[in-house]
Amino acid sequence: MTADRGSPPVREIGVALLGLGNVGAGVVKLLEDNAAAIGARLGGRLVVRAIAVRAPGKKKRLVEVDPALLTKDIAGAIARPDVDIVCELIGGDGEAKDAVMAAIAAGKHVVTANKLLLARHGTEVFAAAERHGVDVYYEAAVCGGVPIIRVLREGLASDRVEQFHGIVNGTSNYILTAMAAGGRAFADVLAEAQRLGYAEADPTLDVGGGDAAHKLAILCGLCFGATIDADAIHCDAISELDAVDFAYAAKFGYVIKPVVIGRDHPRGIEARVHPALVPAGWLLAGVTGAKNAVAVDSYALGPSMYYGAGAGMMPTAMAVVSDLIEISRNLRAQLTGVAPTRRHRALARRPLLPMAEIRSRYFLRFSVADKPGVLGQLTTILGAHDVSIEQVVQEAPGDGNRPAQVFVITHEAREGDVAAALGKIGALPATLAAPRLIRIVV
Amino acid sequence: MTADRGSPPVREIGVALLGLGNVGAGVVKLLEDNAAAIGARLGGRLVVRAIAVRAPGKKKRLVEVDPALLTKDIAGAIARPDVDIVCELIGGDGEAKDAVMAAIAAGKHVVTANKLLLARHGTEVFAAAERHGVDVYYEAAVCGGVPIIRVLREGLASDRVEQFHGIVNGTSNYILTAMAAGGRAFADVLAEAQRLGYAEADPTLDVGGGDAAHKLAILCGLCFGATIDADAIHCDAISELDAVDFAYAAKFGYVIKPVVIGRDHPRGIEARVHPALVPAGWLLAGVTGAKNAVAVDSYALGPSMYYGAGAGMMPTAMAVVSDLIEISRNLRAQLTGVAPTRRHRALARRPLLPMAEIRSRYFLRFSVADKPGVLGQLTTILGAHDVSIEQVVQEAPGDGNRPAQVFVITHEAREGDVAAALGKIGALPATLAAPRLIRIVV
Repeated sequence: MTADRGSPPVREIGVALLGLGNVGAGVVKLLEDNAAAIGARLGGRLVVRAIAVRAPGKKKRLVEVDPALLTKDIAGAIARPDVDIVCELIGGDGEAKDAVMAAIAAGKHVVTANKLLLARHGTEVFAAAERHGVDVYYEAAVCGGVPIIRVLREGLASDRVEQFHGIVNGTSNYILTAMAAGGRAFADVLAEAQRLGYAEADPTLDVGGGDAAHKLAILCGLCFGATIDADAIHCDAISELDAVDFAYAAKFGYVIKPVVIGRDHPRGIEARVHPALVPAGWLLAGVTGAKNAVAVDSYALGPSMYYGAGAGMMPTAMAVVSDLIEISRNLRAQLTGVAPTRRHRALARRPLLPMAEIRSRYFLRFSVADKPGVLGQLTTILGAHDVSIEQVVQEAPGDGNRPAQVFVITHEAREGDVAAALGKIGALPATLAAPRLIRIVV
Repeated sequence: MTADRGSPPVREIGVALLGLGNVGAGVVKLLEDNAAAIGARLGGRLVVRAIAVRAPGKKKRLVEVDPALLTKDIAGAIARPDVDIVCELIGGDGEAKDAVMAAIAAGKHVVTANKLLLARHGTEVFAAAERHGVDVYYEAAVCGGVPIIRVLREGLASDRVEQFHGIVNGTSNYILTAMAAGGRAFADVLAEAQRLGYAEADPTLDVGGGDAAHKLAILCGLCFGATIDADAIHCDAISELDAVDFAYAAKFGYVIKPVVIGRDHPRGIEARVHPALVPAGWLLAGVTGAKNAVAVDSYALGPSMYYGAGAGMMPTAMAVVSDLIEISRNLRAQLTGVAPTRRHRALARRPLLPMAEIRSRYFLRFSVADKPGVLGQLTTILGAHDVSIEQVVQEAPGDGNRPAQVFVITHEAREGDVAAALGKIGALPATLAAPRLIRIVV
C-alpha cells in the first residue's frame, strides 16, 4: 500500500488558474475565505502559482491578487514544474481546448467548468487523460455548485438511471418564474433579467437551449454511458411562451419550467431541451428563480432530486475547489491518473432518438375562428392521428369577431402523430394562427 | 504511481454479508440485477463469499441464496482470506459493534448501514480504521439511498456548512403527511402505517425521534467536524400533534414536518429533533410520504437540497453497494486505508447548545376559559418575557361554556424565555390545558 498514513507532512499542491473572470475570482476568494477548513480536510495547502489572463496590466479585477502571479502566457503557466493542477476557466472550445489538451499532455491534472468543451469533445479529452495518467474533474460544468456529477458517478454507482428531468439553466428558470408570477411577457422579463445581471447581453445560448443541451449531453454520458451529438439535441426556445400559456397551465394544475429530459431507449437516447408543463405537486415545480435541480429516476433508488445554485461566482467556485481538493487528496495519497478507469464508464457513441418517435403528453393551444363546428374539426383531426384528448377548454368571446382560443391537454401520444395533426389543423381555413405545442412531463 | 492502467485483469472482490434481512436481501438482489452495469463501472466483480445469519437452516428468505454461503459464524465469515470487505447489516451496537471492530482489526474494509453504531461510537470506529489502514463507508446510515454523506464529504468539501434542516425519518414523515392531508389523528394514522409496513410494531425509535437523533449526530460530524452526545439530543415526539395544529399551521401558511436541525455556534452545537412548522413555499415542505431530504445552507453554495428514499430494501441496498463499488475501485487502484485521512475531518468533541439558549420562532396554542381579559393576560406574560407576537388568532365559541383556543405565531425568541412564559401561562386559573409549543423553522 502506498497511502501515507498517520500525520503526513503538510504539502503544497500547486494550481495554475486559466482565466480570472467571475468563477476564477471566486476560486481565489474561496481558497482564502475557507483556507482553514480546506487545509483541515486536505492536510495540505492549495497554492495558486500562476493566473493566465488576457491583460495582466488591467487594474480593476473582481478580486485582489498578487500581480506577480498574472501572466498572458498560458503555456508557461501550465508548464511550471510547481503546478500540479491546471484549472481551466476560459470557456469555449478554442483556446480552452488547446490549454486542456496541453495540460493533459504535460501530465497535469485538470479541473474545468467548461460544459461546451466536454459536451463536444469529452471522448477526446478523457481518452487523452487516460493515456497520460491524469485526472479530469468537471463538477462545475453542470448545475454549478450542485454536486450532481459526484452524485451520479459515485452516489448512484450501483444503480441504473432510467430517466432524468432537469432544470439546468438558471437564466431560463429565472425568466419563466417571473413570467408565471407576474403574468408578464417574455421580452419584458428578459430585459429586467439583463439589467439585474441574470441574463447576458446576447441571451441566445441561455433562452435558446444551447447551454442546457451541452449540460444534457454530459448528463447522458454519466447516466447512460452514452456519447451523443450535443449540437443535434432538439431545443425549443422559451421565447415563444405567452402569458396565456402560464395562466392555462396553472388552471390545469401545471407550472411551466425550462427542462432537459434524458431517457435511454434501445434505439437511441431521448434527449431534449424545451419548456414543459410540470405537475404543480412535483418538487421540480417548486424550483424557482435562478436555481437548478436534477430529478433522477433510477432502478433501485426510485425518484431522487438534487437542488441548488446552478451558476454564480461562489457556487461555481465551490464546485471547482471541491474538485481541486479531491485531486489533491489523491495526489497526497500518491493516487492519481486513476480517474479515467475509476471514475468513468466507457462511453459508447449512441444515436439520438428522433423527435418524431418520442412519446409525451401535450398542452396545445389553437387560435381559431369563433364559429360553430370548429372545435369538432380540431378534435376529429387529433383523433384521426391517434392523439386522444384528456381535457379541453374553449374560450370564445361569442361576438363572432374575435378569435376563440382552444386549450387541449392530450393523453400520451407519439410526437410525429401530434406534429402531423397540428400541420393539418394549421392549414384549416378556421385556424387564425399557428397552433402552439408545449410538452408535458409525465 | 501505483495505479493499474490500461485494461487491468478482471479481479474479484470478496464480500462477507453480516445479516440477510431487508437490506441484506436487497444487496444480494442488486448485485445480481445490476451485475453488468456494476462490472462495467468497476472493471471487476463483487462476489459474496459468506452470509452470516442467525438461523442458516431457515427456509423462507426474501431472496434466494446459495445455502453453502450461509453461516452462523460471524468471526469465521470475517476471517476468510477471500473476503476483502465486510458489510455489516445487523444493526445496534452489541454484536454489530463487535463484528465491525473485529473486521477492522483483521484488516478488512467495512461498509455499514448502522446509524446507531456510528452516532454512538463513530470516533472509536474511525480511529481503529485509521490505525489498521482500512476504510469504513456508511452512506446507507443516513437518508438511505440519498447520497448525502458523499455530497457533504466530497461535493461540498470546499464549503463551510452553516446550518441544515433535514427530514430523515420516513415513518414520521409518512404519518405527518397523512395527518395533514386527511385531518386525521396520530393514533389512527400510526395504526394504518403499521398495517402497511411503514411503521414498526414498536414505533418508539421513529416517532419519538431517537432514530433521527442518531442520523443528526452523524450529519453534525460531517458538517461541523463535531462529535456530539447523540443520546443527549433534544427530541420531541410527533405523537403530541393534533389535527387542529395542522389546520392552523396551514392557515398561517405552514406545513408541519418532522425535522432535524443542526447549527454550529461558538458555544456549542445546536442539534434538535422535533416536528416543526415549515413555510409552505419551501422545497422541504413538499417532501411528502416516506421520503427524506436534507436542506443545507453553506457559505459558498448557499441553499441546496438532496431528496429521495430514506429507507426501503432497494434504496438502502443501493447506497451499500455504491460503497462496495467505491472501496473496490480503491482496492483495484491499490489505494485503500486512506479513507480516514482522505475522507474524514478530524472530529472534535463539542457540547450541545442547551435548548434554553436556542432561538426560534414559535407556534403556540392555548386552551383557555372563554372570558374577557384572558387574551390580554397571555400576551402580557409573553411580552414580559421578551416573546413578541407576530400573529394571533382566537377562536372563541362565545357560549361561555366551551374553552377558547388561542393560536400565536411569535417573532424569533429565546427558548428559555418562551418556556418561562409558558410556565406562567400554564399556571393561570384561566388556562384549561397545558400550553402547546411547536417550533417554526426560519
